[in-house]
Amino acid sequence: MPTPHLLSPAGFRASAVYAGIRSKHHPDVALLVCDTLASAAAAFTTNKVFAAPIKLGRQHIKAGKIRAIVVNAGNANACTGPRGDRDALRMCQLAAGIVDCPPNQILPSSTGIIGHALPMKKLERGIVEAGRHLGRSADHAAQFADAILTTDLVRKTAGTTFKLGKETITIAGVCKGSGMIGPRLSIEGAINLSTFSPSRASAKARGSAAGSRADLRNKHATMLAYLTTDANIPAATLRNLLASSTNTSFNAVTVDDHMSTNDTAAILASGLSAKISSTADQKKFAAALDEVCQSLAHQIAADGEGATKTVAITVRGTKSPDIAKTIARAIANSPLVKTAMHGNDPNWGRLISAAGYAAVPFDPNQCVLKLQGTIVFRAGRPVPFNPAAVSKSLAAKEVTVDLDCRSGKSSATVWTCDLSKQYITINADYHT
Amino acid sequence: MPTPHLLSPAGFRASAVYAGIRSKHHPDVALLVCDTLASAAAAFTTNKVFAAPIKLGRQHIKAGKIRAIVVNAGNANACTGPRGDRDALRMCQLAAGIVDCPPNQILPSSTGIIGHALPMKKLERGIVEAGRHLGRSADHAAQFADAILTTDLVRKTAGTTFKLGKETITIAGVCKGSGMIGPRLSIEGAINLSTFSPSRASAKARGSAAGSRADLRNKHATMLAYLTTDANIPAATLRNLLASSTNTSFNAVTVDDHMSTNDTAAILASGLSAKISSTADQKKFAAALDEVCQSLAHQIAADGEGATKTVAITVRGTKSPDIAKTIARAIANSPLVKTAMHGNDPNWGRLISAAGYAAVPFDPNQCVLKLQGTIVFRAGRPVPFNPAAVSKSLAAKEVTVDLDCRSGKSSATVWTCDLSKQYITINADYHT
Repeated sequence: MPTPHLLSPAGFRASAVYAGIRSKHHPDVALLVCDTLASAAAAFTTNKVFAAPIKLGRQHIKAGKIRAIVVNAGNANACTGPRGDRDALRMCQLAAGIVDCPPNQILPSSTGIIGHALPMKKLERGIVEAGRHLGRSADHAAQFADAILTTDLVRKTAGTTFKLGKETITIAGVCKGSGMIGPRLSIEGAINLSTFSPSRASAKARGSAAGSRADLRNKHATMLAYLTTDANIPAATLRNLLASSTNTSFNAVTVDDHMSTNDTAAILASGLSAKISSTADQKKFAAALDEVCQSLAHQIAADGEGATKTVAITVRGTKSPDIAKTIARAIANSPLVKTAMHGNDPNWGRLISAAGYAAVPFDPNQCVLKLQGTIVFRAGRPVPFNPAAVSKSLAAKEVTVDLDCRSGKSSATVWTCDLSKQYITINADYHT
Repeated sequence: MPTPHLLSPAGFRASAVYAGIRSKHHPDVALLVCDTLASAAAAFTTNKVFAAPIKLGRQHIKAGKIRAIVVNAGNANACTGPRGDRDALRMCQLAAGIVDCPPNQILPSSTGIIGHALPMKKLERGIVEAGRHLGRSADHAAQFADAILTTDLVRKTAGTTFKLGKETITIAGVCKGSGMIGPRLSIEGAINLSTFSPSRASAKARGSAAGSRADLRNKHATMLAYLTTDANIPAATLRNLLASSTNTSFNAVTVDDHMSTNDTAAILASGLSAKISSTADQKKFAAALDEVCQSLAHQIAADGEGATKTVAITVRGTKSPDIAKTIARAIANSPLVKTAMHGNDPNWGRLISAAGYAAVPFDPNQCVLKLQGTIVFRAGRPVPFNPAAVSKSLAAKEVTVDLDCRSGKSSATVWTCDLSKQYITINADYHT
């Protein structure tokens, strides 16, 4: 069975068109429509500088009922004042006209340059045109996935299925994100479900096809993720499960730790497949959602600006998952760690010292550090290892760092990438 | 009058020798000796992974009385276990033998590679040899300043004087630091003196002579700063004043925000000049100390690994200095801001969005952002400006960013540098 795509879950159509918002000829307006009034949840950036579609989206998601998502690339509609608010609402009104629902059942998204008013004539034509091309094929899913990309080099898509009795539930998603990636999304009203432990992204959920080149002139890279499912699940449950999955996926990926003004992760549930009723059902759904979200997060790290490899940093043996994540994030965000990874340098000193300044409990005399499975540091001292062999193992496309703090039972994984000269090229040579 | 150097305050001698700890022939062991039993204070790294000399130094500084500082470059004596502790103590014993005092009146420091035992035979010979070459000349001061450098490209020295009645008090200092620079030093027992507002580093206190090239093979860049004064001042007062100055200087400079295991700032007061008695005296001393420390901090940013310019980020109009500093630090540490600065790109969106994720109160609709004196953003919206002209102004060696939050009376300045491909070269091509 092929990997499910965004439109594999029953009840979804999508489309994408080029409306001329980007300078480069590449789809820049997209619609994702649910045949039913979907149960919905969304997590938004916690940046105090947030775009107009974030402000409006927070209102529209409150009722937990969404018919469609309208999104444009090339312009973030951020720092655009009252006009930006009106333009975001106009996007929703146009999409609402297409699917015949109230505008507050539309979730708007934008990504691209900030501080510029949306070119509304182009965008209005684009949304109307997109409404004419809705379809359910894998091609339609791919077009939607491609339309949201900015500096990304590859399309990002994931999907999985699980059985509930005789019925199959599908969860799928697409995302974008390459630079300005340091999301800390939050969902209003979500309850922390710490009972759901994160499952790892399986190979099944992974898969990315070659996409279009970056359109650097319109760059303001944000993380956007859109998820679909045909599960029949109440919005309140969806909200809690998305919050939980987000914490171990989108909120656990960092390229440059620069949180964007437009970061969004949203999920629509058409309700056309089995009902999620029991706690056991919820756990199955949560595991599948974790799998999809973690695959997408991993793909963001892999396509990080200038990245030549991903680095999965797992910190375990802490008193809480938050402590583990804080240490992992400190390691992931150190430019010295990222450059060492780029140079295949088993520089454990940079890793351990980053753990030491994470401002949470950490005792170097207790811990064990492994690079690609090789112990390099234990109990406050380096452990002799073959530097050439470990360096060679660090030349892999996927590197693992494992730090066992030996002081508790919690753990967390953060995904990042190495820091190369290409990151400087992409971000220093681009002009607003 | 020439700028005072490290040995300009009455009562100090120094020396530096090459003991063979570094691979490159360059002084790597140095002594700074006070003729009297100096009043002393020191601020140390808050990294939970701290080197043996930090552990010992914290004990030795407690009494506030120090005769000499012994320092080596080329080996950090960090992650070296019980042997590291013994070696740090041995360094103090040897220095104590030279100046004839108890070992706990010696402050030890180390910088260089971590996880390797100090080559004690070489170091012991070096310390004894350094004891034979103590002197008070500008050359001796320069040799000491050079001996502590690692990846630094230039010597870092500053000094100033002020009058107390008819007597002149001199404060001077040297420091090192280029990469792995994100100090957050703390002084045990210091009282926060918020009444002393930071003065800006004046041109008088600035000045750096061409020093030696980086010795990349022995790299573990740390911030070390040593200050001397001939003021007659109790250790308790010195402690509070150093804490205050550190917060607006060494703790306000970041190159890559990677806190080291060995960061140290220490001050010795010989007591051979005027006595600091009144609050007015203290204020004068504090202003002079601020001036010297801020000059040194600025020199660290200017010599940041790969730096082509310094960026002074001032955030004002906040409800507390901590809020201002947190926002300034978030802006300073964003790789997107640093690369924009490298590319002379007036990318206000990256600056404002970094302020927005600093996790302290910030309202983009209140603030005014200036780049090199030009307003580019106000009240939530960009302000039209000439991009070519502002870009040209950003090509300066010293760039200023000024963000007025218009919600209070506090302010803070953080110094950083741009992020260039040279940073990647220095840190990815170096192997442990």
